[in-house]
Amino acid sequence: MNRKPNIAVVGATGVVGSTFLKVLEERDFPFENIYFMASAKSAGKKLPFKGKEYVVEELTENSFDKPIDIALFSAGGGTSAKFAPIAASKGVVVVDNSSQWRMDPEVPLVVPEVNPQDIEWNKGIIANPNCSTIQAMVALKPLQDKYGIKRVIYSTYQAVSGSGVKGISDLKNGLEGKDEPLQAYAHPIAGNCLPHIDVFTENGYTKEEMKMINETHKILGDDDIKVTATTVRVPVFDSHSESINIELEKPFEIEDIFELFKNAPGVVLQDDVENNVYPLALDAAGTDPVYIGRIRRDFSVDNGLNIWVVADNIRKGAATNAIQIAEELLKVLED
Amino acid sequence: MNRKPNIAVVGATGVVGSTFLKVLEERDFPFENIYFMASAKSAGKKLPFKGKEYVVEELTENSFDKPIDIALFSAGGGTSAKFAPIAASKGVVVVDNSSQWRMDPEVPLVVPEVNPQDIEWNKGIIANPNCSTIQAMVALKPLQDKYGIKRVIYSTYQAVSGSGVKGISDLKNGLEGKDEPLQAYAHPIAGNCLPHIDVFTENGYTKEEMKMINETHKILGDDDIKVTATTVRVPVFDSHSESINIELEKPFEIEDIFELFKNAPGVVLQDDVENNVYPLALDAAGTDPVYIGRIRRDFSVDNGLNIWVVADNIRKGAATNAIQIAEELLKVLED
Repeated sequence: MNRKPNIAVVGATGVVGSTFLKVLEERDFPFENIYFMASAKSAGKKLPFKGKEYVVEELTENSFDKPIDIALFSAGGGTSAKFAPIAASKGVVVVDNSSQWRMDPEVPLVVPEVNPQDIEWNKGIIANPNCSTIQAMVALKPLQDKYGIKRVIYSTYQAVSGSGVKGISDLKNGLEGKDEPLQAYAHPIAGNCLPHIDVFTENGYTKEEMKMINETHKILGDDDIKVTATTVRVPVFDSHSESINIELEKPFEIEDIFELFKNAPGVVLQDDVENNVYPLALDAAGTDPVYIGRIRRDFSVDNGLNIWVVADNIRKGAATNAIQIAEELLKVLED
Repeated sequence: MNRKPNIAVVGATGVVGSTFLKVLEERDFPFENIYFMASAKSAGKKLPFKGKEYVVEELTENSFDKPIDIALFSAGGGTSAKFAPIAASKGVVVVDNSSQWRMDPEVPLVVPEVNPQDIEWNKGIIANPNCSTIQAMVALKPLQDKYGIKRVIYSTYQAVSGSGVKGISDLKNGLEGKDEPLQAYAHPIAGNCLPHIDVFTENGYTKEEMKMINETHKILGDDDIKVTATTVRVPVFDSHSESINIELEKPFEIEDIFELFKNAPGVVLQDDVENNVYPLALDAAGTDPVYIGRIRRDFSVDNGLNIWVVADNIRKGAATNAIQIAEELLKVLED
């Protein structure tokens, strides 16, 4: 669009919401007017943004009566279920961070480095994928394009910030030895690994695992890719790490994989094991790239590959990806 | 043997060594005389054991001149390389916890629930497998026997106690925010996941990963099983967790897998996801079983299975397994 857009940030006071603000500032996202919205509980709070102070508005059915072009939603599935269609019906394009609309065939699910073209067919809602899926997609896309992907096995090492303030609080309390009731988890997370993210489904997989499987198909646009996942919460505050085992369709030279990732969009190659260089959660925290390393042939299968993929789950896994979607959206939005 | 054996514990003052003492006491391991040995640095230290106090002897070339039947070694590869053959040459059977002899074709590598028969052909040294391998073997053996195993993909979540006191210290210092130099790791472990255990080898795998691959073949007695591994240190003090993806040879019913593990030696089945029951590092710590849960079909391949396996790496992963070997050994040793 040729004018500056009017923006709304819905759920502006949560962990992801506050990172939305930070990333919007950093990337100097253009806007004419910006509105911050949240539940009644958080309404009235004051938020500093780009040197000014904004008062958080209560999100209501009338919030989108004013002219808004893009709304960044990060307020949970229930809020998105109710308010995203209202916003869309009033001409707003919603970029939604919840899982509510991701698998809706009418809603594009987008990682800008992977399937930016899907933004164009949006009908008012664009879904931001699950955090653990996003970073995997940035890693898998160049492999898919060059070699084709037959099968993927994910094992994840996910940070507590993915559970919002409650997850962070559970880990902090645990590490400090405080005997506080758990807020986010069924079991203590300090000193523990919980193979349990989101709720369990009937087939024994968690919803998080099913998200990784289903969203991989949708984003890569190929339901024939075989995918399985084990998702695990680890006592780490920021950044998800992933052990990804991949079976490619075509043969490869391992040097070509290094070269491919060196030049892949959104990727930083960190693989110099002689000097102990490989992706690390602590290093990724607060940054936007997807870090890839520990690249090596899996000798247990034809065309097998093991990689280790790390990204900040709140930035590339949520806020940054959503804002990148909004940036792409600006190119296709009409005035 | 019909009389009580004479026992030596070599490396009695380390993390594993002190657990040797605890487990020997708990299991009321029979002995006539017991000797505790360590490097010159630790010699002279006093160790309480079964209500008595023992003085740690310095390990020398003459340490095995006295009549000793079984020596439990946990003093590092260098010490085992030098002293295990000396002990063996004097009629001692060494149960060695280091990686020094594991892949030697003249040395059995034993998990008592899996391949106790290999104890019989020992020539004076029996190797205790790598911690992360042991628990995986206890889980894989019943599957191998009933269905055959085609391929295994390990992703591990390993505790710092596997690096001894230095690893524990690195995590403690990190969690307490102390700016101490790292002793065990190339990078901070607090709040981090390190895809780096033991040194890197030329093919890009770590030694730990190659141990899991090679030891799986040797213990299961089948070099045709395809295996790959990604081994990761996590900020957990005790117990290794493992995400294991398995491709079986024959078809299975998922209920039969539950039944199989319910009755498998050394296994505790913990799989009731509706009630948030699954294996956890904190629960396994200080206990001897291998806990298996998150059992579910991997729909991405024929006869595919995902499981989550947790055990105390210092107990079943080291001391307990070694002492179980010694217990089996007593049955076959001649007077």
